[in-house]
Amino acid sequence: MQTMPLLLLNRTKCLRNIEKMVLKAKRNGVGFRPHFKTHQSAVIGNWFRDFGVSQITVSSLRMAEYFAGAGWKDILVAFPFNPADADRLRDLSRKLTVSILVDSMEVLPFLKKLPQRVPFYIDIDTGYGRTGVRPDDPELIDRIIGGSRRTVNLEFAGFYCHAGHSYQAGGTAERNRIHRKALTDLNSLKEQFSREDPSVLYGDTPSCSTQEDFEGIDVITPGNFVFYDLFQHSIGSCSEDEIAVAMACPVVSRYPGDRRLLIHGGAVHFSKEVLYLDGRSVFGKLVKAGKGNGWTAMKEPVCLSGISQEHGIIRDCPPGFFQCIRTGDPLYILPVHSCLTANLMGGYVTLEGEKIGMMPRPE
Amino acid sequence: MQTMPLLLLNRTKCLRNIEKMVLKAKRNGVGFRPHFKTHQSAVIGNWFRDFGVSQITVSSLRMAEYFAGAGWKDILVAFPFNPADADRLRDLSRKLTVSILVDSMEVLPFLKKLPQRVPFYIDIDTGYGRTGVRPDDPELIDRIIGGSRRTVNLEFAGFYCHAGHSYQAGGTAERNRIHRKALTDLNSLKEQFSREDPSVLYGDTPSCSTQEDFEGIDVITPGNFVFYDLFQHSIGSCSEDEIAVAMACPVVSRYPGDRRLLIHGGAVHFSKEVLYLDGRSVFGKLVKAGKGNGWTAMKEPVCLSGISQEHGIIRDCPPGFFQCIRTGDPLYILPVHSCLTANLMGGYVTLEGEKIGMMPRPE
Repeated sequence: MQTMPLLLLNRTKCLRNIEKMVLKAKRNGVGFRPHFKTHQSAVIGNWFRDFGVSQITVSSLRMAEYFAGAGWKDILVAFPFNPADADRLRDLSRKLTVSILVDSMEVLPFLKKLPQRVPFYIDIDTGYGRTGVRPDDPELIDRIIGGSRRTVNLEFAGFYCHAGHSYQAGGTAERNRIHRKALTDLNSLKEQFSREDPSVLYGDTPSCSTQEDFEGIDVITPGNFVFYDLFQHSIGSCSEDEIAVAMACPVVSRYPGDRRLLIHGGAVHFSKEVLYLDGRSVFGKLVKAGKGNGWTAMKEPVCLSGISQEHGIIRDCPPGFFQCIRTGDPLYILPVHSCLTANLMGGYVTLEGEKIGMMPRPE
Repeated sequence: MQTMPLLLLNRTKCLRNIEKMVLKAKRNGVGFRPHFKTHQSAVIGNWFRDFGVSQITVSSLRMAEYFAGAGWKDILVAFPFNPADADRLRDLSRKLTVSILVDSMEVLPFLKKLPQRVPFYIDIDTGYGRTGVRPDDPELIDRIIGGSRRTVNLEFAGFYCHAGHSYQAGGTAERNRIHRKALTDLNSLKEQFSREDPSVLYGDTPSCSTQEDFEGIDVITPGNFVFYDLFQHSIGSCSEDEIAVAMACPVVSRYPGDRRLLIHGGAVHFSKEVLYLDGRSVFGKLVKAGKGNGWTAMKEPVCLSGISQEHGIIRDCPPGFFQCIRTGDPLYILPVHSCLTANLMGGYVTLEGEKIGMMPRPE
């Protein structure tokens, strides 16, 4: 075992998650352009290639450059185009197909002098309220498409929608409603702009994991499903058994008075992403280390209940569990938000002991 | 200007924060062993040296190794000793004085065969409830000291206390009460164990910034004060003007319908640390970029109101402010928790344009 804290990756579960989403896309007759911001790893990217994936989604131009270096030739940067990246886009678009998102007129002047064709999708806001053009503003869409015609090599490709409010849905009914509204909005735009033959890209992990109707959608773009996490489990996107990553952290001290454990594993490892379960803050959930699949559910739930920069605290341990734990023991802990945990850890170790790297930090 | 998001460091404010704490320690006749986990930087460490600092505190053995490489010869690892680090402690203690924390008997067997003297402090829990021996358990303290006598080169040096519940104090009166209780507990232990001539180390940033009575304390060990942040400001540790770091993030899109701005700057830059101000979530607060001191307060407060992995959202901008902002403009934003933001950014750029590195990520 290498130095903990470590981010363990259960390759079998990860491959199963990928395969399941590949099959779901096929079953629904939609394309699959997975988002790679969760794993940020060229090695894990290659696992998708083995399933026939050739188009990917990333969240920054820097990430596009990283995956371009790993041989990907068709990359969508799913973030409204950042004017600061104009020169880098020009460079990268010479080597491969880089698609971008646009959701305003103001960005078009930064997209002049593109040396090669750059497809763009108009980001559509079906209710999340983060980015995108509202579907009741077709005039703006018209102006963006019109403006792009006067911008050499910038080519309207369709619509993109991340219905991220699905993450906050209060239950199945609300999640279904969010999904239905997104489909209605996107199909209406597809109809209104049919002369442009737009492709429609859609699909956060909750929707892609739980919905079965993708009428009018051309391509799905989920990302988190590659690992899932406690948050996705809490909203019904996955079973706990499908979560493919776990932190391994050492027990550093035991406090028998209140059956409390200190681990080395804090906000700089897990992130401060928190779940509120039964009125308590949860920063991670323990699983039992085992052979074969790597870990299994514990009989009684035990959660990481507090974190500071490097400290993790597990309060009110069940007596039987507490008694079995020794200082120095490794604990396996499912993260609340696998994307942020992976980003902090900067790499993985598979259950077989293989180290897997990630995109490096900026210089 | 280098590629944003960037973590800007106002060297003048930072040096002033250091000087103020140095003078406070002197005024109170206590030693000063600053915690370096906030900045994690050899270069910034050297700024402390210029004020005569020669002893430092860190939060992991890895961080001790990093600062040992930068020439520090007296380092306290202020985290209950992690048994996984036993070999590395033995190596490092050959080269410099590495002090550690102990708060249980269980860890002593891991501290055998120390090649050189390793001073240890017993971590005392005066109410925070994270780590440490409770002051009403002198028997455990006795047993630890006794056990250490049977452990070659492990030498009892005194007591350490991080009264981190000062961060959650509901106001001045509660913070004062927490500080008084810590002093009372620590002085009582100092008295009970006077035959050991224990040194008492104490001092989180809120207490060291706001309190004036350090009776019985030998050394203070605050860390965050080097930069401060919005959280420290919210609990009264500093003025907003003393915050020495700010994120520089580009405006990527503008949404005039609800005066909303999208910046590139999200959870992988700021962390997800959040403040609740007037019932609203705050992930950062904008300041006005300017010459001289780098930034000044805005007339009307404008806050970073939402973040996801790479996105930052500023909602409900004041109309006058919104109208002045253009896509591509840099915004300066004070972070909620400077330690976590610095850890994510991995480096600084001073207002003079100097790049300052930090401890690298683990291999």
